[in-house]
Amino acid sequence: MLIDQLFATRTHRMKASEIRELLKLLNRPGLLSFAGGIPDPDLFPSAEFSAAFQAALQPKDQAEALQYSVSEGYLPLRQWIKGEMARMGVACDVDNILITSGSQQALDYLGKLFLSPNDTALVGWPTYLGALAAFNAYEPRYDQLNPGGNRSPTSYRDAAAEANSRVKFAYLSPDFANPTGETLSLVGREALLDLAEELDCAVIEDGAYHALRYEGEAIPPILALEIARKGSIEDCQTIYCGSFSKTLSPGLRMGWAVAAKPVIAQMVLMKQAADLHSPTLNQMAVYKVAEACFDSHVAGLRQAYGARRDAMLSALEAFMPEGISWTKPKGGMFVWLTLPQHVDTAEVLTRALEQENIAFVPGQAFFADGDGCNTLRLSFSVLDADEIRTGIQRLARLLNQGTRV
Amino acid sequence: MLIDQLFATRTHRMKASEIRELLKLLNRPGLLSFAGGIPDPDLFPSAEFSAAFQAALQPKDQAEALQYSVSEGYLPLRQWIKGEMARMGVACDVDNILITSGSQQALDYLGKLFLSPNDTALVGWPTYLGALAAFNAYEPRYDQLNPGGNRSPTSYRDAAAEANSRVKFAYLSPDFANPTGETLSLVGREALLDLAEELDCAVIEDGAYHALRYEGEAIPPILALEIARKGSIEDCQTIYCGSFSKTLSPGLRMGWAVAAKPVIAQMVLMKQAADLHSPTLNQMAVYKVAEACFDSHVAGLRQAYGARRDAMLSALEAFMPEGISWTKPKGGMFVWLTLPQHVDTAEVLTRALEQENIAFVPGQAFFADGDGCNTLRLSFSVLDADEIRTGIQRLARLLNQGTRV
Repeated sequence: MLIDQLFATRTHRMKASEIRELLKLLNRPGLLSFAGGIPDPDLFPSAEFSAAFQAALQPKDQAEALQYSVSEGYLPLRQWIKGEMARMGVACDVDNILITSGSQQALDYLGKLFLSPNDTALVGWPTYLGALAAFNAYEPRYDQLNPGGNRSPTSYRDAAAEANSRVKFAYLSPDFANPTGETLSLVGREALLDLAEELDCAVIEDGAYHALRYEGEAIPPILALEIARKGSIEDCQTIYCGSFSKTLSPGLRMGWAVAAKPVIAQMVLMKQAADLHSPTLNQMAVYKVAEACFDSHVAGLRQAYGARRDAMLSALEAFMPEGISWTKPKGGMFVWLTLPQHVDTAEVLTRALEQENIAFVPGQAFFADGDGCNTLRLSFSVLDADEIRTGIQRLARLLNQGTRV
Repeated sequence: MLIDQLFATRTHRMKASEIRELLKLLNRPGLLSFAGGIPDPDLFPSAEFSAAFQAALQPKDQAEALQYSVSEGYLPLRQWIKGEMARMGVACDVDNILITSGSQQALDYLGKLFLSPNDTALVGWPTYLGALAAFNAYEPRYDQLNPGGNRSPTSYRDAAAEANSRVKFAYLSPDFANPTGETLSLVGREALLDLAEELDCAVIEDGAYHALRYEGEAIPPILALEIARKGSIEDCQTIYCGSFSKTLSPGLRMGWAVAAKPVIAQMVLMKQAADLHSPTLNQMAVYKVAEACFDSHVAGLRQAYGARRDAMLSALEAFMPEGISWTKPKGGMFVWLTLPQHVDTAEVLTRALEQENIAFVPGQAFFADGDGCNTLRLSFSVLDADEIRTGIQRLARLLNQGTRV
């Protein structure tokens, strides 16, 4: 017998992304890539990390740094996060915080926590494809979360009931979302909480890009708004997922989840069973670097990435042909393009690589229903302003051909 | 509604271990603990790690060390593991190897890969409790794996069929297993492969303690024996899980899985969806330290832990009352005691803490069927020979009372 005949049913939902595989192979000279949603490594606080790792491996701390530790996470780091959450309007204890291996791990655990097969997850059309990948392992049904739209709670409930399902949570990234770059307004956040209350479901708030705002005032996290309604985090159904990947380093895999204690307690059990704990040394180093320079470092990132966003928006304005629209993100790393209905962006990518030596991510992978063939995601995080301008010019030239057809 | 009413059914199988919680609180002066199955931090290669982290954070490598990387793992580390597996008789490619966050993560992914609810996992009675915790999340049925016994393949198949189930894999740790310290003989390993072939199921081989042998010749891993039968790893149904936790450092959370490519490919997708990859920097540092001193470092561990095992076995021989039996491990960190049937070791633990200031782990948690109340696990890894002798003397005094009742 072939061993894959022994695999569990959930593996049918776990497929390799063709696009991801294609982009992995790209390492050509001169390629201008708008594809990867990754931070610029030139902006990592490398010297600070070097000092922090060295300090954590001094005789005083090395036994702790290299030994097993508790699943909840390194206490000083959780205390630092508690302070950071308080600044964002989320009053909580360290016992409301779990350290995870990136916010991606929090998404996996939350899928595992809430989803039995055929339970309903509400997600944006489009949404973060890593969230879909994490949730898919637990075989959910998806329905379209559309906080700006006018779909009634009853229609969600009826659709779930018809599919013999039940809405477990709504997932979204309210600030500068991957892939669209869009931000949910304060009114939209309140409406989402109304919807979650009516549906009696949880809210998974992905705050991965929260710190990277380039203009305007910060809007409180959904969890902060729910605490304001209910008086205490213990009465809240929102789970906040944070990450150091976009601020300090993605390669260290360090994130966190904040929620009512029964949720965190269950996630701690999951972590104990799944990987025991995130590496102790990394938690110590991230704590030291965050404590030393988080605010000043993030201020520098905002300036650098903000300038790149400006360069991209100007270039789009200058070069894009008629019939193409795009988002105007106030932060994050992404701009989202919508092309005329008949254009297939996967096909455009093939030509973009061949003819113009540029890359982007076709939008379809971000749609739980397989829609979005005429959309694409551009990242402005790793190219400088001149490269962005050149790349957008090339893309415009290509789309001029494409849309003319 | 209380949020735990939204939790998936699998959470019913995820309970906090009372014993683990109890032991977590223990930090009293003078306590002699045989409880934790953890390496001695004085034996970590701390200087080597300090140098390795410093080197990986030099300008040449720092961008790679702190950036996102591929889910498969850092190539030089996979190449090193390929060499190590070859020395153990396992011929494989780097594409047969996935880097995991400890072998615990490999166990979680393998549960996720094979187990739909009610599928059967064969496990020892007792077995590693972390394996039970990892598998429980996928709601399996358990049956007793007893490679030394004479249960027929048919009886496993019939029992599974009666429960409307199917045997997916057998899990075991063939060398110096946690919790018993016992080793499966060559004949036993071949018999296990026969059983797995007859049942058409996979074998999950947990090699966490493999390197820590204190006497006798190494026995080939089950995967090596299956490759010898079938000619190629691609035709094998055994998955080997390795770990650096007991040799270099547990706190860095670094392990690996070795298997046929379709299995590894599916585990790579899981890792991509669950935490993207293990921390790049840690993989680079573990590679550097393994490359620099693995063999000599492990030789030192064998000597140190071997002496502690000798001290424990001598003390047991000298002090234990009649009616108590124990294993004689050839490696690893554990000795397993079986007390008279009427003794409840959870109750003995309470008295051990109160009266003798010693700790151990009661055996029941290691049994999927809740049996084993009269068993307990002793670890000899963190105490020196004198402490071990004193602690065993105290335990013997207590059991002399207990068994007299």
